Amino acid sequence: MAAELSNKQVILKDYVSGFPKESDLPFTTGSKQLNVPQGSTGVFVKNLFLSCDPYMRGRMSPKRPGAYSDSFIPGSPITGYGVARVLDSGHPDFKKGDLVWGLTGWEEYSLITATQGLFKVHDTDVPLSYYTGILGMPGMTAYAGFYEVCSPKKGEYVFVSAASGAVGQLVGQFAKLSGCYVVGSAGSNEKVDLLKNKFGFDEAFNYKEEQDLDAALKRYFPEGIDIYFENVGGKMLDAVLLNMRLHGRIAVCGMISQYNLGQPEGIHNLAHLILKRIRMEGFLVIDYYHLYQKYLEMVLPQIKAGEIVYVEDIVEGLENGPAALIGLFTGRNVGKQVVVVARE
Amino acid sequence: MAAELSNKQVILKDYVSGFPKESDLPFTTGSKQLNVPQGSTGVFVKNLFLSCDPYMRGRMSPKRPGAYSDSFIPGSPITGYGVARVLDSGHPDFKKGDLVWGLTGWEEYSLITATQGLFKVHDTDVPLSYYTGILGMPGMTAYAGFYEVCSPKKGEYVFVSAASGAVGQLVGQFAKLSGCYVVGSAGSNEKVDLLKNKFGFDEAFNYKEEQDLDAALKRYFPEGIDIYFENVGGKMLDAVLLNMRLHGRIAVCGMISQYNLGQPEGIHNLAHLILKRIRMEGFLVIDYYHLYQKYLEMVLPQIKAGEIVYVEDIVEGLENGPAALIGLFTGRNVGKQVVVVARE
Repeated sequence: MAAELSNKQVILKDYVSGFPKESDLPFTTGSKQLNVPQGSTGVFVKNLFLSCDPYMRGRMSPKRPGAYSDSFIPGSPITGYGVARVLDSGHPDFKKGDLVWGLTGWEEYSLITATQGLFKVHDTDVPLSYYTGILGMPGMTAYAGFYEVCSPKKGEYVFVSAASGAVGQLVGQFAKLSGCYVVGSAGSNEKVDLLKNKFGFDEAFNYKEEQDLDAALKRYFPEGIDIYFENVGGKMLDAVLLNMRLHGRIAVCGMISQYNLGQPEGIHNLAHLILKRIRMEGFLVIDYYHLYQKYLEMVLPQIKAGEIVYVEDIVEGLENGPAALIGLFTGRNVGKQVVVVARE
Repeated sequence: MAAELSNKQVILKDYVSGFPKESDLPFTTGSKQLNVPQGSTGVFVKNLFLSCDPYMRGRMSPKRPGAYSDSFIPGSPITGYGVARVLDSGHPDFKKGDLVWGLTGWEEYSLITATQGLFKVHDTDVPLSYYTGILGMPGMTAYAGFYEVCSPKKGEYVFVSAASGAVGQLVGQFAKLSGCYVVGSAGSNEKVDLLKNKFGFDEAFNYKEEQDLDAALKRYFPEGIDIYFENVGGKMLDAVLLNMRLHGRIAVCGMISQYNLGQPEGIHNLAHLILKRIRMEGFLVIDYYHLYQKYLEMVLPQIKAGEIVYVEDIVEGLENGPAALIGLFTGRNVGKQVVVVARE
């Protein structure tokens, strides 16, 4: 019989309705076989960093028709993006000692059989945790959503909601590098300060301090908005629709304000899509991973030259993962939320 | 002093809120100078057919920010698309005797100064009224929205709302000619019959007889919808969002169910834009008139070969125009609503 390791895990207790609580994601200790089973093409990894991402909320509910990702399995460890070290491999593309990022388990050790979703980490001159953020799924999301979906042009007016988050902070910086005027919204004055003074947004505002989002947008965009990078949905989207310019583009990346509501809020201003001939397009990063190498060739030099910065909110220890993940939905995190499982 | 003609007119009494009534559009008699004024590049026309179009409701309200067309002027004749005979011209491109279509007045005689919106009628082997419909603005709308915005592929599943209207009946026929499966919704059994037996839709249903639009769509689209040609908005749009397929397209042409509401209904299912990576795009025909000649080259032979049919709902007499126009919003018309001002 193969040797086994003790394996701390975060499991989904049961499907969640409404806001998730820490008690929905209990911390337990299981065990894991040390090697890849004979004949398997999986890889056995030690998890180093785990990524907290808003889309994971959807996986805590029973699978909805048309959903792109499976639900978590009650009683089993939840899964998500992470950075890991390969300890054993049955796959010709991965060998012991490789660093990888991709979908893994919220546990100390994982056997990853869906290896088609794994990327090898080649460049380690940057913080390894960046492969959960700027160099991982959120980075590709910002890149695909801004450049591929929005087709920005120099001088355009760009608005980003949830702008200090894992994706938003990059969209704002990409917009500045593209010669756009960019404004971000966030949920605290600390985040607003970050947007203006760290990420170089032209302006930023705390949406919680605005009685009238339409008026706030009119203040920052007297000429209107060409590009809206949508991360929040709800009332913000309705206010943005009133302020879009002719032939504007809305990249719908996420709607975090709606994920924990039984019935999403109604959007009333869609007729503006016609008046201003607006294209509103939902997208998922999984359709754009073929551009990952191209993205790295753009962004790695920008990081190393200090042209792009990335702010992470790092918590130590898998046992602190559930609170960190849940904190996304109250905006507790400042920057990309990362969980450290192990520092080698 | 130039000679004057008696000129029957339909005027806007005052800005309208809610559903328009016939009393909002009184019928009066004015007078019109018989010739184009000295030095003007306008054309003086005798109006023959006038077009009743849903977008005209917006022009009965004070101009909204971002609106693409000016409001009607209270106390003055309303304007809209029509077919007319040139009686006098100060413009080098138009001469006495020409037939034209474009924006004109709801009156017997009009002086058109915005001649850039006028098209000359060259082909008179088809009913002249067709230039208010299949060969005019609604035809170009169906063509641009279906072919340019939706990029249909053979075998795709197409849904059209307000499907027996001026635009919808064409979208359905274009979809069939493109090898798509097409279903239409309309508001009476007579219209449903027309869709199936006259226009060749694969299926059709009366939305007023459906308790649950989501269930109705699931019945007709067990595989889901690739293309939705949106004419109505509101509850139908919300139900469609639940039934879209991966990489679906929604061409937002109009939202007639919402035009007379003070506050438009809320749309709750926009998160499906992300899940299914849907592109939802508002469009206006005015951005596509450069394709008009190309469209005529496609559609005129199709009409003459009987491959495309067009159903009009024709009322005689300008005095019956207000009731016809208002009837659009209760679905009174069966097919394209046309008003005959004069038959030469």
